[in-house]
Amino acid sequence: MTQEWPPVPAPDPAAAAACAERRALLPAGALGAFGPIADRLAAARGGRHFPLATVRPVLVVFAADHGVAAAHQISAAPVGQTRSRIADLAAGAGPIACLAREAGAVVRTVDVAVAGDLSGTAVDLSHRVRFGSEPIDTHDALTEQELDACLQAGREMADAEVDGGADLLIGAVCGVGVSTPAAVLVAAVTGMEPVDATTRGSGIDDDAWIQKCAAVRDALHRCSPAARDAATLLRVAGGADLAALTGFIAQAAVRRTPVLIDDVPTAVCAVLANRLAPGVAGYLIAAGLGPDRTHSRLLGALGLEPLTDFKPTLGSGAGALLMLPLIRAVTRLLDETGEPAAPRTTSAIDSWDADLL
Amino acid sequence: MTQEWPPVPAPDPAAAAACAERRALLPAGALGAFGPIADRLAAARGGRHFPLATVRPVLVVFAADHGVAAAHQISAAPVGQTRSRIADLAAGAGPIACLAREAGAVVRTVDVAVAGDLSGTAVDLSHRVRFGSEPIDTHDALTEQELDACLQAGREMADAEVDGGADLLIGAVCGVGVSTPAAVLVAAVTGMEPVDATTRGSGIDDDAWIQKCAAVRDALHRCSPAARDAATLLRVAGGADLAALTGFIAQAAVRRTPVLIDDVPTAVCAVLANRLAPGVAGYLIAAGLGPDRTHSRLLGALGLEPLTDFKPTLGSGAGALLMLPLIRAVTRLLDETGEPAAPRTTSAIDSWDADLL
Repeated sequence: MTQEWPPVPAPDPAAAAACAERRALLPAGALGAFGPIADRLAAARGGRHFPLATVRPVLVVFAADHGVAAAHQISAAPVGQTRSRIADLAAGAGPIACLAREAGAVVRTVDVAVAGDLSGTAVDLSHRVRFGSEPIDTHDALTEQELDACLQAGREMADAEVDGGADLLIGAVCGVGVSTPAAVLVAAVTGMEPVDATTRGSGIDDDAWIQKCAAVRDALHRCSPAARDAATLLRVAGGADLAALTGFIAQAAVRRTPVLIDDVPTAVCAVLANRLAPGVAGYLIAAGLGPDRTHSRLLGALGLEPLTDFKPTLGSGAGALLMLPLIRAVTRLLDETGEPAAPRTTSAIDSWDADLL
Repeated sequence: MTQEWPPVPAPDPAAAAACAERRALLPAGALGAFGPIADRLAAARGGRHFPLATVRPVLVVFAADHGVAAAHQISAAPVGQTRSRIADLAAGAGPIACLAREAGAVVRTVDVAVAGDLSGTAVDLSHRVRFGSEPIDTHDALTEQELDACLQAGREMADAEVDGGADLLIGAVCGVGVSTPAAVLVAAVTGMEPVDATTRGSGIDDDAWIQKCAAVRDALHRCSPAARDAATLLRVAGGADLAALTGFIAQAAVRRTPVLIDDVPTAVCAVLANRLAPGVAGYLIAAGLGPDRTHSRLLGALGLEPLTDFKPTLGSGAGALLMLPLIRAVTRLLDETGEPAAPRTTSAIDSWDADLL
């Protein structure tokens, strides 16, 4: 029995309108694709429309291993790398840590089901649910109790960060082989065939890709069409990291906090979160469009336009971290733009006309 | 007689190769369009390949008025706004100042030929050449001596900033009506017809656009095809700000310093700088692609691919300032990536494989 989700409050249309009004003081199209995003941020926060600028962005990375990766050659990385990577990230090493420092984002690392011992590292172990997960091509990834615990872990992380002052959340996963359960979830929610939903992930060769497709097909077959609700999909063919991320995204929306999403695993969790807690999509911002064709299908299902066509493939969270300074620049610019009702003077931003310069 | 330009040193292919080698340690395509840019930055600096990260980016804005804007209704802004806007920027007000603060860029404001008195403001007056410029549809914008002084102003600004430690330069113009001479230069260098090269600039209406097209046509007619060398074009149909910006871009390349360019006036000055000092193009990075169709023609002429399709229209410099944090993040990431020769360990960035996570 999966937990009930609290209702997601509707974004505030008055706040969006106030932001659009302020944007109208800038030249037409001045902020490009970032203009409508500013309205969305304002609507998410509601009430206190301005300042819009993000003060405390937080990236939360949920780490878990996947039994399917231990059972088959579906990833170019050995399973043990999940442990070392999340430990590295917690210690401030690796590309995601570097990009987070550049973007001024706080990083949280959470072990939900890593197949290894992370004690003695800086990784948060208080939400640990199990050791790895079952291979989804033959078994359910998680029990009902484990699924609940994972969703709850995500929920508690979102609550803790919002309570701690986070005003923009980024969710990500870290787990060798995660693109395999993600592909099953993509196929289940979009109706794509396994061969279309299955990506090269870590850059696997043809033989590995064929094995991966077979695992995706078998796992999808185990998700009977009658039981493709979000919770069942996560339990049968997902994994602990994906379930926790889904709970995290859903609870962020419940708490009226915008979530920046970037890659395919995050996008498919966002789709599932939107099913668990209808209305989540209104709190999402798509940082970019990755190279996988499944990505645009998922964003389309969420009604999202990606901010750019920039296609970094550095891993979960990287695209969002790269967009963060742009979002902050645009929102700060709007914060500095004069009140709509104020008279226009030549010294205020609101009198700026771009191209005539 | 226009000054001779020193030769532009060739970018260092060994530095580009070293950077590409380091990039190869990241997953394929990991940095998207920013990957090749990193190689270009490395090649520009040469010798000291790493660290690549920009430490001191500087935006230099050249301000001037245009006689053609005083003579015709070709801009939505009154001529006096050049003065107030550059003064505002120097005082830290307005959108460009806001974006520069967010991006951590130093801003310099230079009056080369504003039609107004900027004494008492923070604008640099030491490079002032004249009061406004002649209307280009009927007269040469500048005399030979004035052109030389403007080119020299840009040259001196580039030298001063590079000597002061700038490692990435952004050039921009500020002048009501500047899109009119810019359109003439675009038509002259690309062969586009005046009606195709003439933009809506400040968002002018049909009547103003027709006047603007006529002015562009008349000015272009005054540039005899036999005298379309870069210096003559700037003198006859350009303006003080455009000439100074051209000198600035050319000298930056002479000093092996990369220049980030964004809008149409900057791109056309870059084309002219590349003619004055062949090889300049190797030091340019195109931040984005603006909404004007002339923009892609100019970038094509320079052999540049824009970093994104993000189309902000906030004014000269804005697109470059918005890209700056991304460039910095990517270059810092490469700086932190292990030496290519080092053995791959699971704790170094160079063992990171993105999507398998």
